[in-house]
Amino acid sequence: MTSFSFSRRLVSEALGTALLVATVVGSGIMADRLTADTALALLANTLATGAILVVLISVLGPVSGAHFNPVVSLAFALRRGLTARSTLAYIAVQILGGIAGTILAHAMFELPLLQASTTIRTGGAQWLAEVTATFGLVFVILAGLRFRSEAVPWLVGLYITAAYWFTASTSFANPAVAIARSLTNTFAGIRPVDLPGFIVSEVFGALLALMVASWLLTKPRDSQILAETEPAP
Amino acid sequence: MTSFSFSRRLVSEALGTALLVATVVGSGIMADRLTADTALALLANTLATGAILVVLISVLGPVSGAHFNPVVSLAFALRRGLTARSTLAYIAVQILGGIAGTILAHAMFELPLLQASTTIRTGGAQWLAEVTATFGLVFVILAGLRFRSEAVPWLVGLYITAAYWFTASTSFANPAVAIARSLTNTFAGIRPVDLPGFIVSEVFGALLALMVASWLLTKPRDSQILAETEPAP
Amino acid sequence: MTSFSFSRRLVSEALGTALLVATVVGSGIMADRLTADTALALLANTLATGAILVVLISVLGPVSGAHFNPVVSLAFALRRGLTARSTLAYIAVQILGGIAGTILAHAMFELPLLQASTTIRTGGAQWLAEVTATFGLVFVILAGLRFRSEAVPWLVGLYITAAYWFTASTSFANPAVAIARSLTNTFAGIRPVDLPGFIVSEVFGALLALMVASWLLTKPRDSQILAETEPAP
Amino acid sequence: MTSFSFSRRLVSEALGTALLVATVVGSGIMADRLTADTALALLANTLATGAILVVLISVLGPVSGAHFNPVVSLAFALRRGLTARSTLAYIAVQILGGIAGTILAHAMFELPLLQASTTIRTGGAQWLAEVTATFGLVFVILAGLRFRSEAVPWLVGLYITAAYWFTASTSFANPAVAIARSLTNTFAGIRPVDLPGFIVSEVFGALLALMVASWLLTKPRDSQILAETEPAP
Repeated sequence: MTSFSFSRRLVSEALGTALLVATVVGSGIMADRLTADTALALLANTLATGAILVVLISVLGPVSGAHFNPVVSLAFALRRGLTARSTLAYIAVQILGGIAGTILAHAMFELPLLQASTTIRTGGAQWLAEVTATFGLVFVILAGLRFRSEAVPWLVGLYITAAYWFTASTSFANPAVAIARSLTNTFAGIRPVDLPGFIVSEVFGALLALMVASWLLTKPRDSQILAETEPAP
Repeated sequence: MTSFSFSRRLVSEALGTALLVATVVGSGIMADRLTADTALALLANTLATGAILVVLISVLGPVSGAHFNPVVSLAFALRRGLTARSTLAYIAVQILGGIAGTILAHAMFELPLLQASTTIRTGGAQWLAEVTATFGLVFVILAGLRFRSEAVPWLVGLYITAAYWFTASTSFANPAVAIARSLTNTFAGIRPVDLPGFIVSEVFGALLALMVASWLLTKPRDSQILAETEPAP
Repeated sequence: MTSFSFSRRLVSEALGTALLVATVVGSGIMADRLTADTALALLANTLATGAILVVLISVLGPVSGAHFNPVVSLAFALRRGLTARSTLAYIAVQILGGIAGTILAHAMFELPLLQASTTIRTGGAQWLAEVTATFGLVFVILAGLRFRSEAVPWLVGLYITAAYWFTASTSFANPAVAIARSLTNTFAGIRPVDLPGFIVSEVFGALLALMVASWLLTKPRDSQILAETEPAP
Repeated sequence: MTSFSFSRRLVSEALGTALLVATVVGSGIMADRLTADTALALLANTLATGAILVVLISVLGPVSGAHFNPVVSLAFALRRGLTARSTLAYIAVQILGGIAGTILAHAMFELPLLQASTTIRTGGAQWLAEVTATFGLVFVILAGLRFRSEAVPWLVGLYITAAYWFTASTSFANPAVAIARSLTNTFAGIRPVDLPGFIVSEVFGALLALMVASWLLTKPRDSQILAETEPAP
């Protein structure tokens, strides 16, 4: 994948996921303390998250691919041949890094280091939102890598900026981040008991994106083009 | 136009328009639920829409051109020779995709899947706003393709970010999106009965942009330059 | 300058300044109507203005240079040899275009087409702010063209985004826009009687930027480098 | 480092730091005057600061490297061989420029030119936040220069946009800016007595980033890659 050593790639994934979660959780705490308007708090949360994604993917992408997300690693495993062992190691350090990010945010804001969230996020509509959010994220990554690989950091940051608002779940779209967010009882939290529904939805959305992308982004043979360009309506 | 098959191009237009409308409608619902300040709601709506436009045009542009908008397809048909049949097919899937986007947003936010909007948007000032908004959009696309084609996704996203605020109509500038927005009685809605005025204005604005662009962006022959560079005042 | 005809260049300057002013004035009216919070209104005004600047400079820069600003045309005249006659024509159409932009914004928002502003903006602190704002703008343009010409649209848009907030005058930095803003009694207005102080300050700031840039951005001869690299402290 | 003379490089560092501080302090004053909502004020402060960083680093980077920050100069001194004398001169003009920026902001907003801040920012959590903020900033600069040097202005601007929100200290991350901010009793201030804790934390964070970057961003020899690519779990 890259020419960096496996240990550096794992540290890169852990560090990136930690800073991503510290931003999601930390900016939520900061915003929530400074305003009574929930939309304004989510707006600050959105800007911080979108901005840090562009940065982290730009600077750690060349080291480890900058997945920071188990379903993204899974998609690459299914698509590009990341070995099962590497994939499992990536996922493990993403989860550990994410939890470290929650702890760091809590330490900076003088809160108990680990907490169980009480924020309810469950039900069919929320799951549909997570399927949609993760479908979009993985599709954007795959199509971005296909057509504009240098722009992928921006595309992911901007996609999440939009998805925080257009999905009813505020677009977790990431099982490692979801687990880390179950350990904070602040703005960005999710009840631990609601994790399975979110994670299943995220995996499903990612698989859907893989399927759609593998058809939609493939150029047919010339003969097919001739046949299909102007079909009868 | 592109080397992707016609069916893929149609799916690309439908998918892109669906996600665009889901963002416009969904972020409007989310913002409206979280704040009582209409400017703040429009700000969130703006950011989400501008961001997703950059993303969708970047990742689907190489497949289908990423029009997501009947008047853009119309402009290309008049300018570049997209056949009438292709243009009609593009417009049809844009409208269907847009409606699917409204349904998706409603499903994620647990609302009735199709609704008739009651938001009044009509009258000469609103129509002037739509003419202006669509003139600007189509002009930006044509001039952007002429001078900085790789920047078009950004230029469209930023133009709409501005146009949400500087036009009195919040810049629909898109008949397919307008139709889809007539089917939601939420923040982004428009009464079905007000659609014709908007659509006529949008088509007029697009044609005006075509005319201005075809004169303004053309370099004269050298002889003309010599004659015109320093005319008497 | 460019290979476009003089008439096209003048139309480009007029059109660009008109859309810039329509955005500044229109987004101010929209924001002011939607919220009671002045900071939020200025934030919306800022985003719209910054975004449209990136767009307009990108798409009209190749035609006319995209000055949209008499002090920018003046700086190029002093620096690059734009003739006096061309400069005067540029300034004239910038002023006319700006006024047209105010009229367009008023028409879209159903207001009297021309108004005299009653917003007081005067005094030494405001003039210092305009000197600072215009110094920064012209310096950014000159240094941007010197080092990263393709990024100038972004640099100008981002500079004005910052300057709306860090200067006490909200950074007019443009005599044509200032004149156009004196004709609207809305959020973005300025009393006609306060125009001379602003315009003199803007010209002064632009000249200061020219002086600083012509020294700071010049590489010395090699001999000087040897002498100056490590001077005694 | 660059081929600009030493005197130009020092003026560039002083000018850049002055405009950076004028933006941080000035936008804080503006925002604080216009709204009672602290989150909204911080949001405006964030946008202005992030935007001006992109601009200043783009236009002054080619002259002096655009450090504007003693710990960044220190990092380059330790890493790339900026001489001790140059480093001290850079730091001196950064501090002087920063103070000039505070004075400029106060003059524009008609406030006493120098003030002692009374805003308390101290304690272990704040220091941890500053370590984190500065670690991130210096790591982003080093990794950005390594992989995407042309994107560094954007990466720094976006990183600070996020860090204003995810660190409990609003991410000063800069001793020269911290000193300048101790001289304003407005939104962006910090008590002079709290400076040492912040500066020590910032130096520590920068050194930590240097250590992590020098290990993480180094590609191992080929033999190591073979050995490490797929280690036993």
